[in-house]
Amino acid sequence: MATKTKITIQDIAEKLNITASTVSRALNNNPRISEETRKAVLKAAKQLNYQPNNIAAALRNGKSHIIGVIVPTADRTFFASVVRGIEEIANKLNYKVIICQTYDSYEKEVQTIDALLSARVDGIIASIGKNTENFSHYKKVLASGLPLVLFDRTTDQLDVSQVGINDYLASYKIVEHLIKEGCTRIAHFTSPKKISIFRERLRGYTDALQDNGIPFDENLVISSNLQLEGGRQSMEKLFEAGELPDAIFSASDYGAMGAMQVLKERGVAIPDRVALAGFSNEPFTSFTDPPLTTVDQLSLTMGNITAELFFEQFKLKDKKFVPQRTVLMPEIIIRKSSLKKG
Amino acid sequence: MATKTKITIQDIAEKLNITASTVSRALNNNPRISEETRKAVLKAAKQLNYQPNNIAAALRNGKSHIIGVIVPTADRTFFASVVRGIEEIANKLNYKVIICQTYDSYEKEVQTIDALLSARVDGIIASIGKNTENFSHYKKVLASGLPLVLFDRTTDQLDVSQVGINDYLASYKIVEHLIKEGCTRIAHFTSPKKISIFRERLRGYTDALQDNGIPFDENLVISSNLQLEGGRQSMEKLFEAGELPDAIFSASDYGAMGAMQVLKERGVAIPDRVALAGFSNEPFTSFTDPPLTTVDQLSLTMGNITAELFFEQFKLKDKKFVPQRTVLMPEIIIRKSSLKKG
Repeated sequence: MATKTKITIQDIAEKLNITASTVSRALNNNPRISEETRKAVLKAAKQLNYQPNNIAAALRNGKSHIIGVIVPTADRTFFASVVRGIEEIANKLNYKVIICQTYDSYEKEVQTIDALLSARVDGIIASIGKNTENFSHYKKVLASGLPLVLFDRTTDQLDVSQVGINDYLASYKIVEHLIKEGCTRIAHFTSPKKISIFRERLRGYTDALQDNGIPFDENLVISSNLQLEGGRQSMEKLFEAGELPDAIFSASDYGAMGAMQVLKERGVAIPDRVALAGFSNEPFTSFTDPPLTTVDQLSLTMGNITAELFFEQFKLKDKKFVPQRTVLMPEIIIRKSSLKKG
Repeated sequence: MATKTKITIQDIAEKLNITASTVSRALNNNPRISEETRKAVLKAAKQLNYQPNNIAAALRNGKSHIIGVIVPTADRTFFASVVRGIEEIANKLNYKVIICQTYDSYEKEVQTIDALLSARVDGIIASIGKNTENFSHYKKVLASGLPLVLFDRTTDQLDVSQVGINDYLASYKIVEHLIKEGCTRIAHFTSPKKISIFRERLRGYTDALQDNGIPFDENLVISSNLQLEGGRQSMEKLFEAGELPDAIFSASDYGAMGAMQVLKERGVAIPDRVALAGFSNEPFTSFTDPPLTTVDQLSLTMGNITAELFFEQFKLKDKKFVPQRTVLMPEIIIRKSSLKKG
């Protein structure tokens, strides 16, 4: 936050000790927010001189009034919701958002940048594909003088504003929750892919065990594609290995769902015998029986903040601009699947 | 189909008496399709002179190689999956797809058309917003000589190619299935909105009852927003009314999920006492307990066919072009929630 010059909703959240997503909802008059909270947020926004609307006046130098948003895929709830958060801010400023999907293909990502530049967008917001290791196509955006902001899947190799979430801490907190529920043999479902989000979730898991005096057991860490089938296979492996763990923390909701299916098929009580937790707060997690404990990644808030950073930079354009990094703390959503103590 | 001049995957499907989605998967070398089926599809494709790749040669007159796709929202599974189906075809032809969301706002839809035209797209594929009653912005697209194809939410007021699904027949078949399972008092959750898809689903419901000699009871038709909360409220209304129905067919999966929650909270056995069916095949429906009977809208296939119609028209450009209408038959997915006979 040291490089920050402009007040964002994150600052208001910290001042009031509430979440950024509550601030965002309050500012957007979401009916789920109480009148009391809304008033407190508006008061704090005034005190901090938060000025989302003043940006509009500074946007006269735009050309197409179109922002290109690049996502690996728009049909994953997380990305769709970040895009919605970006559009909330952009539309207020009379900017249109066009979305392009790369399906994690490096080649498609390169073509997409070319297509967006030829479509004369005023700037680009992107989440980098899994297989991208060369960033010269993004450097082309910077060379053309257009603002570029990254979210979620970011990189140190580009000196641009970035918004991420703290996977490590979310994972640490969820394992700590399982330990507080009395679990001592906690398995972890992870991915063999060298993507930082899964490495960070694994690190949070091992550190939480260590800090609570629970020995790390490599036999309890199972790798798969973390899809439904991967979760099922990982659960079968735990059955084959003999004594079941008393909890499973999967780095994905689909993996946790696979485990839930196998446990139910074999008549193992959830959470009494085995507690379960996932990651991402996919919509289905509140519909499973029992509902699944998980981590909400504040996707809408991430979109809001990403768009704010974008327009801030856009406003400055030719003046000096210092890239910012914002790291959001995801929310732990505790549901019945992990409540051993009822 | 009378106006058709070009063979599509729908024609191959009819010839082989398999679904269009199986044909699409076979042509795309999807591993879920058996080698035998794949060979039969390729053989039929050859016999019918199906030529997807020959289109590519005719696309030299394109300018930006970008297609604009307009959807009410990209974060609904259905629309996201249609877009994926469009991209499968477009990317093979080296076309990029940019996606714009209207959030069902007429004003945003008008602005989006302007933005896409200024981004110099080579054509537009759209699903019309719920609140759109004036189509002059779409006529502007036609006047500029660009191809326009509509899917799912279509209109008779534009003389363009359209791809829809048969909501009536899907609804009829699902009610017929419930009757075969022994249900005689079947409730229907519907929407008060005058959108044709819900009118068609209601019509399928009433016709299926009538054709099977079951009297229509208006007290068993409950209107709501068809979201989770709407489904819960509709279920509560049925409880208040006294004798429960022996089945509920909701015009949305979320509505069915709301009913499932209330039934489980009150200890009513599903499907033994009350059978349940939804509509849309949302991903969560296979994860509920019991899994939910529903209707799959063949979204990927719809995207494939929509894109095929688009490129067909694109190829002809200045020659005479006859708009086509394709109506897909959705697939009934029968799961435990409706199997009274086990």
